[in-house]
Amino acid sequence: MSHENVTDVYFDFLCPYAWRGLELAATLRAQGESFRLRHYSLVEGNHAENARELSWRLTGQQLGEGSANQQGSLQAFLAAHAAARQGEEALWAFTLALYRAVHEAKRPLAAETIRAAASEAGLDVARLDADLADEAALRAELRADLDAAREVGVFGTPTFVLPTGEAAYYRFETLTRDPGTARAWWELYRTVLTSEAEIGTIKRARNRPPRRA
Amino acid sequence: MSHENVTDVYFDFLCPYAWRGLELAATLRAQGESFRLRHYSLVEGNHAENARELSWRLTGQQLGEGSANQQGSLQAFLAAHAAARQGEEALWAFTLALYRAVHEAKRPLAAETIRAAASEAGLDVARLDADLADEAALRAELRADLDAAREVGVFGTPTFVLPTGEAAYYRFETLTRDPGTARAWWELYRTVLTSEAEIGTIKRARNRPPRRA
Repeated sequence: MSHENVTDVYFDFLCPYAWRGLELAATLRAQGESFRLRHYSLVEGNHAENARELSWRLTGQQLGEGSANQQGSLQAFLAAHAAARQGEEALWAFTLALYRAVHEAKRPLAAETIRAAASEAGLDVARLDADLADEAALRAELRADLDAAREVGVFGTPTFVLPTGEAAYYRFETLTRDPGTARAWWELYRTVLTSEAEIGTIKRARNRPPRRA
Repeated sequence: MSHENVTDVYFDFLCPYAWRGLELAATLRAQGESFRLRHYSLVEGNHAENARELSWRLTGQQLGEGSANQQGSLQAFLAAHAAARQGEEALWAFTLALYRAVHEAKRPLAAETIRAAASEAGLDVARLDADLADEAALRAELRADLDAAREVGVFGTPTFVLPTGEAAYYRFETLTRDPGTARAWWELYRTVLTSEAEIGTIKRARNRPPRRA
């Protein structure tokens, strides 16, 4: 297998938990862990028409149609697939720049923000525009990710799929880019997933105590 | 506070995950951990009439009315509150005996199984019957548990509420009564709940890989 040591991370640019998950992955990547960026669409996953079976596909929608979330996420996903043509490092740089623009700088997930992120990430923007014109191929790549997510049973982001097959949604509130902290939080998640207890869920009760100071 | 070192464990006799959680708690209790047994009703919690606000109460239903799950869980909860009048050890013995009868020996959660569990747990069954006649008081005690669960935001069982206030549903597949294993699984849960990451959820993707051999 070519991906035997690679963890897949499924994300949607709309999701602030996925942002923190991606920052965690990026921090671990700098320590030699391998992650593959993969897309899951919250708009498609939560769409009322898909309650029984998949009938409404994000990849079948026109750019500029639907809700702001639908438009923004489709544009961002296609731009990420175009960015990947400039290499894996370019894809990571673009992905992080766009997440930070949306979830840290609170800019809208829309065309202008996407272009600015590409520029900030050091991409060749003219090449990005040219690659974006190959829209049918980018949509097919996105569809492959979304279908792979369905196969795994992803229901939210971030979801990590370990090389050994264990897969779970990992939602946490605190952002870290500290190498030791990131390592500890990742090992904790891996320990839960690989425990002989076969843990299916740890989910906090709805009424949480006040956040610690 | 009188319960400063006590973990509340919310459970419903209907739930096999709560059974494994209670066995875990019982194993830890033998090591000196303190747990308080508290009731949460899945039938009430999942009742369609309660989607917006609490309007249908298990404690307002007649014995012998409703689904088998409704009847069985109400009877079992009231019997547990009656068993508690014979002391905390009697309550634990009854609770475990009933769980094992239902989820290990696969007997129905119904009057005959409940009486047999009381007998097997060494309770004074004549006294239990007498205490069961004080039904209004038992229902009030049950209501207090169910209302406390609502206050915490319990949505499934088992849910543990740590002395420090953190509370979460803990669902796992494997039964253990091994002291060291129970300790490890409990410490893992506590570590997740008290992590500075402020983990809200770790939940496995829907399509799990085959169980390990």
